[in-house]
Amino acid sequence: MALNYPNFSFDIHHQDEKSGARLGTLKTPHGSIETPNYIFCGTKAAIKALSPAQMVEAKTDIILSNTYHLMLQPGADLIEKMGGLHKFMGWDGPMLTDSGGFQVFSLGEGTMANEIKGKNKGHENKNLMKITEEGCVFKSYVDGSKIKLTPESSMEIQRKLGADLLMQFDECTPYHVDKEYTARSMEMSIRWGDRCLVEFERHDNGAQGLYGIVQGGVYSDLRRYSAEVIKDRPFFGTAVGGCLGGSEEEMELVVAESLPYAHPDRPVHFLGIGQIKDVFKFVRMGVDTFDCVIPTRLARHGTALMKGQKGETINLTNAKYREDKTPLDEANGVAASTEYSKAYIHHLFKAGEILGMQILAQHNVATINRLMREVRAAIKAGELDQLEKEWLPS
Amino acid sequence: MALNYPNFSFDIHHQDEKSGARLGTLKTPHGSIETPNYIFCGTKAAIKALSPAQMVEAKTDIILSNTYHLMLQPGADLIEKMGGLHKFMGWDGPMLTDSGGFQVFSLGEGTMANEIKGKNKGHENKNLMKITEEGCVFKSYVDGSKIKLTPESSMEIQRKLGADLLMQFDECTPYHVDKEYTARSMEMSIRWGDRCLVEFERHDNGAQGLYGIVQGGVYSDLRRYSAEVIKDRPFFGTAVGGCLGGSEEEMELVVAESLPYAHPDRPVHFLGIGQIKDVFKFVRMGVDTFDCVIPTRLARHGTALMKGQKGETINLTNAKYREDKTPLDEANGVAASTEYSKAYIHHLFKAGEILGMQILAQHNVATINRLMREVRAAIKAGELDQLEKEWLPS
Repeated sequence: MALNYPNFSFDIHHQDEKSGARLGTLKTPHGSIETPNYIFCGTKAAIKALSPAQMVEAKTDIILSNTYHLMLQPGADLIEKMGGLHKFMGWDGPMLTDSGGFQVFSLGEGTMANEIKGKNKGHENKNLMKITEEGCVFKSYVDGSKIKLTPESSMEIQRKLGADLLMQFDECTPYHVDKEYTARSMEMSIRWGDRCLVEFERHDNGAQGLYGIVQGGVYSDLRRYSAEVIKDRPFFGTAVGGCLGGSEEEMELVVAESLPYAHPDRPVHFLGIGQIKDVFKFVRMGVDTFDCVIPTRLARHGTALMKGQKGETINLTNAKYREDKTPLDEANGVAASTEYSKAYIHHLFKAGEILGMQILAQHNVATINRLMREVRAAIKAGELDQLEKEWLPS
Repeated sequence: MALNYPNFSFDIHHQDEKSGARLGTLKTPHGSIETPNYIFCGTKAAIKALSPAQMVEAKTDIILSNTYHLMLQPGADLIEKMGGLHKFMGWDGPMLTDSGGFQVFSLGEGTMANEIKGKNKGHENKNLMKITEEGCVFKSYVDGSKIKLTPESSMEIQRKLGADLLMQFDECTPYHVDKEYTARSMEMSIRWGDRCLVEFERHDNGAQGLYGIVQGGVYSDLRRYSAEVIKDRPFFGTAVGGCLGGSEEEMELVVAESLPYAHPDRPVHFLGIGQIKDVFKFVRMGVDTFDCVIPTRLARHGTALMKGQKGETINLTNAKYREDKTPLDEANGVAASTEYSKAYIHHLFKAGEILGMQILAQHNVATINRLMREVRAAIKAGELDQLEKEWLPS
């Protein structure tokens, strides 16, 4: 295959023997980012409650959008017609899209949280209608229509959306399924990945880079096998996927059993994971980028991500903040963190003013971006353990 | 009385013989504004969906907050403790508070729109429990508790809130009541205004300026009488109040019968009115400032205020904007108006993304501020008729 991603590169310029973490520069046609880094979710071509300018104010380097949501509304053809996702939503930096698979297989609108928490106890996804070798058929949550998604159509849609970094189409196996199902599913995902590569190459013009996804559930041998196959394929990057287990230990195992067998020179993305503690844990295993909805989702519930806070967060709707004149964090370098008292934000949530969500969303994004800057500096200085204690006091 | 408002002034520096409009400078302890101008509603100590910085970006000069809402949540004492409204919400410019009367008398949370549209057909306000010479008792929409509001307590609350421009407490008579009720109510509002002046002076430290309110419903002789009494009292400014009639003609009559008898040298505020056509109509009658919730309320429903649009607005949820690549208005000088296509905003509303409201709110505020700048320039140049045709083509 001739895939060589001429407009992309990933340079690892520091590898910390002690911690296992690495520093890199990931170059895309829309600019370069330093890694480790965090990719913020703009699910429906919008970061919830923040404009692109406010994301830049919060020092954001890279965002993502979800293929599943955008193919249903407004549709990939419309976005292509409008000049692609970057232009459509006014984001000029690097951008990633997922394949649509995660949402189709494990969700149905609104149940994502349960799935991530491992609370989906069976095949209760009412929207998923059929999975075959060809792909899957599901029901649109927008208008109930029947929609087919295949490796080829996922590539086509992602090409039209026009993000820099794309994901192969895979079956995202639920957490609770047995090894036999997981193995069959993983094999199919590998075949789907190969079909993605063929389809991707047919239209490749150097504007996009494709990631393969390591699957295999919580089974070590399957993870290893999947990682080794993905490594041999001409993907630009490696993603660690799967509806991850309920426990932190299993999540750790999944990464620990996948990454040693992944391509050592490719950027590694951990799909859908990104609490502060996860960042510290998984950069040590070689993860380069994270993504998670929590920075903006927590904001909508009045919760602020905080450096130096046990449990990572505080909830501003708590009565104890009613008369608290202090700002969220003087050191975050963005008005949302420095210009409003906790008392005012508490009031905004009590009063049902959406400005409260807007302030917390920007604060949370700024906090995570600061976390990543400090993580990179600490990796360089060999002080990751110390930084972790500052962020997450025991 | 010794009230002389040493830190306030209103200088009328141009009076257009032809149109009747005037240009002034209204000075407050938090800065000066040029008039005619528009006061944006930050009802609960927040402009809906916009931060103070975004209001400044949209070239906003002055905002208001509502005493009724703030006395219930978070309470005037809390805001005083936090350093006053300016500091609490992070707005450093001129600010106005109303007296609480309008909401208590004519509303009950949620029915404001009906009242303004003249659709409240009777005394159906379930929250208002009693009106006496002393004041009124109403039920809190926050927790159902019984709350008393009097001229004295309205002054005390507004003093604690700490805005620059205050309103006297008045009974805001519903549109449908007869002349006898309206006359008795107006007389009581005059007595309440006098009590406000006494209470205001007791604590006056030069930081605030008090407006008297002309009442009298749709009855010309009552309006004239009220205006003449208010003129004789030591108020800083004159407000035109009352739950205004359903028809534009009656609204016009109310102002036409009030203002010729009002103090000629004081700033005139028209309470709660502010469509684009109202601005053109009432600046010609000598109104200096307007306030209305429509710029941000329309935004929440997908509606953009537009220069040169018949009917003043367009609704972005309309399917005809689905593929419209043009921005809202290149000339508004704010990213909300220039950086997003109508197609993108249409998508945001379809997708239920609150960023859509945020964009339209800032666009609408910027549009109104631009309207006011252009109105001032046109008054100076004697070209108000021409400008009106540009904004409101027939």
